[in-house]
Amino acid sequence: MGKGVCVSATNMPSRPPTLQWVGGIEGCLEILDQRVLPLQVVTVRLNTVEEVWLAIRTLAVRGAPAIGVAAAFGMVLAARTAPGSSQAALLIEDLQKRGAYLKTSRPTAVNLEWAVDQMIQVAITERAVGVRQLQQRLLMEAHAIHDQDVRMCLEIGRHGVALLPKGGPVGVLTHCNAGALATSDHGTALSILYEAQRRGIPLRVYADETRPLLQGARLTAWELAASGVDVTLICDNMAGLVMRQGKVQVVIVGADRIARNGDAANKIGTYSVAQLAKAHEIPFIVAAPSTTFDLSLATGEGIPIEERAAEEITEGFGKRTAPAEIKTYNPAFDVTPARLISAIVTERGVISPVNEKNVLKMIDRLT
Amino acid sequence: MGKGVCVSATNMPSRPPTLQWVGGIEGCLEILDQRVLPLQVVTVRLNTVEEVWLAIRTLAVRGAPAIGVAAAFGMVLAARTAPGSSQAALLIEDLQKRGAYLKTSRPTAVNLEWAVDQMIQVAITERAVGVRQLQQRLLMEAHAIHDQDVRMCLEIGRHGVALLPKGGPVGVLTHCNAGALATSDHGTALSILYEAQRRGIPLRVYADETRPLLQGARLTAWELAASGVDVTLICDNMAGLVMRQGKVQVVIVGADRIARNGDAANKIGTYSVAQLAKAHEIPFIVAAPSTTFDLSLATGEGIPIEERAAEEITEGFGKRTAPAEIKTYNPAFDVTPARLISAIVTERGVISPVNEKNVLKMIDRLT
Repeated sequence: MGKGVCVSATNMPSRPPTLQWVGGIEGCLEILDQRVLPLQVVTVRLNTVEEVWLAIRTLAVRGAPAIGVAAAFGMVLAARTAPGSSQAALLIEDLQKRGAYLKTSRPTAVNLEWAVDQMIQVAITERAVGVRQLQQRLLMEAHAIHDQDVRMCLEIGRHGVALLPKGGPVGVLTHCNAGALATSDHGTALSILYEAQRRGIPLRVYADETRPLLQGARLTAWELAASGVDVTLICDNMAGLVMRQGKVQVVIVGADRIARNGDAANKIGTYSVAQLAKAHEIPFIVAAPSTTFDLSLATGEGIPIEERAAEEITEGFGKRTAPAEIKTYNPAFDVTPARLISAIVTERGVISPVNEKNVLKMIDRLT
Repeated sequence: MGKGVCVSATNMPSRPPTLQWVGGIEGCLEILDQRVLPLQVVTVRLNTVEEVWLAIRTLAVRGAPAIGVAAAFGMVLAARTAPGSSQAALLIEDLQKRGAYLKTSRPTAVNLEWAVDQMIQVAITERAVGVRQLQQRLLMEAHAIHDQDVRMCLEIGRHGVALLPKGGPVGVLTHCNAGALATSDHGTALSILYEAQRRGIPLRVYADETRPLLQGARLTAWELAASGVDVTLICDNMAGLVMRQGKVQVVIVGADRIARNGDAANKIGTYSVAQLAKAHEIPFIVAAPSTTFDLSLATGEGIPIEERAAEEITEGFGKRTAPAEIKTYNPAFDVTPARLISAIVTERGVISPVNEKNVLKMIDRLT
């Protein structure tokens, strides 16, 4: 996102794709810049793996599935510009090095690791075809990961809609953004709501604004309202009250990494929402594709939790709102233990009750 | 706060009084403008009851006890400028009218009503002394309410400190600002912490930033840090996580109105914090003077809950952070049911367990 950046801005509320590859092997990754939504609808073209790294790190593209897809295309860019890319063996070595670098952009979402490893695996498996062909093959693989993500999201919607309570408008609370903007399209948690909408199920959605970066206010409220879903924006600390008022029949959120026992890391604050849902006897549903599971981890304790800059809390709105040099704590994620999760909705079906046995039955392999 | 406003600004981190009467009967009420803290330390002089109304409404002065004291001095200003103030009977009629007006500034904190009624009662009781003397008498009464508030806060600190767990640093979580800035001095919840500090009890305080108006970030973090208390600023949605991490041994908050059964209204989000405290088996303590009790209400259901402008959520920091015309819900308070409150600390002692019998035993009359 340096000199080569192509930026186009519009005041229109239409939504460009979250991310898409533009052109052939010499093309680039175009992303919707989520840092400036909803006031500006800007797309940015990424031409190098370093630009993809920065876009992920700065949350220009975010959401575990979308990060995974961006990383896959990032590996295409890496393969194209790798210094030693004249021989397949050197190209693979480069890909491994730059894949490791790409993984450092954000630590929590496992889809990033998954996509990078998947791309490297393809390169290793198909190394015999030669460098040019291999680059083409990697682009095809990234497209396949992209298409697969779209399909998985649609399937999550179809499986999840069956879990919504029947009769009358359904009050739904969601946290952060697990929508079309967090994935290649449709979303995970929000895919269930879009599917409900298609089926004519009336919804009343409460969107937590999700401090510090306000993905709920900026992204979820925007994409739900643009899709005609009845959405009310609240501050995170109002979630308990709206539950107590009987306005919420189900909580649905996404996930960034799910351990073998079903413990699920998601945006900071999700754990509090899960506890509040339990206190009010409201089902708490996690929606995530199989690529979000990390079966190498027995429990959520092993999930790395990213801590981000203090300024996200103290100057999150372009204006300082806290004393100078105040101590802060800014974890970007927390882990909700499996015992607080009523069900995990994947593209393969619903895991419930949530425990290791049922996770392994559904997610029998690292896809 | 119109033309007659006297403003002085400084970059120094010193803290002027939350509010003080300057001069004699022809003086004015000087308040620390809490809308611009902590970046600007500005005092504002209020010369009319309308200016006091606006200062309360816009949160230039806030916190239930401080609002009460400001209202008392507001009634002094009303008595001084009442159109029909040449006769005691007319003055009292004016005071009743303008007291009713002053009460409309904010609905939830009962201290506002209490102070206005107290001032009117004094005027009625002492009407025989004549208008000039009555105005002086009202100023004396407002000073007495002010002084009483300072004493009550100190007593709350002394009673409350006994409830802190013994041994090792005490992890405390607080929500909004129930500190020196919310009262005439010392605070309610924070008075307990200042008393602990005086006694050499090591503290590690987590301050919820408290959306939408960030009283935790702007006020609590500021006054605790300025007093040398170890304070860490977190977003509201991190409260559950820090509790789960074992960093919190006690939650202490203030209150704006407490019903006869102990249900307590306080800043929005308090109810969620109380539920989270229960889930983690952490004592949840409310600190408030007897003037915050409303014994006319059997339960918290009768407490009026102020709803404030959508822009506090969507443009809270001078910059729009949500889609245009998005629907919002912005209650400024919620009610924590007595069953979630371990103890209520008043200037008279500690109410625990919290129930109607124990509330009535401690708060036997509307003081």
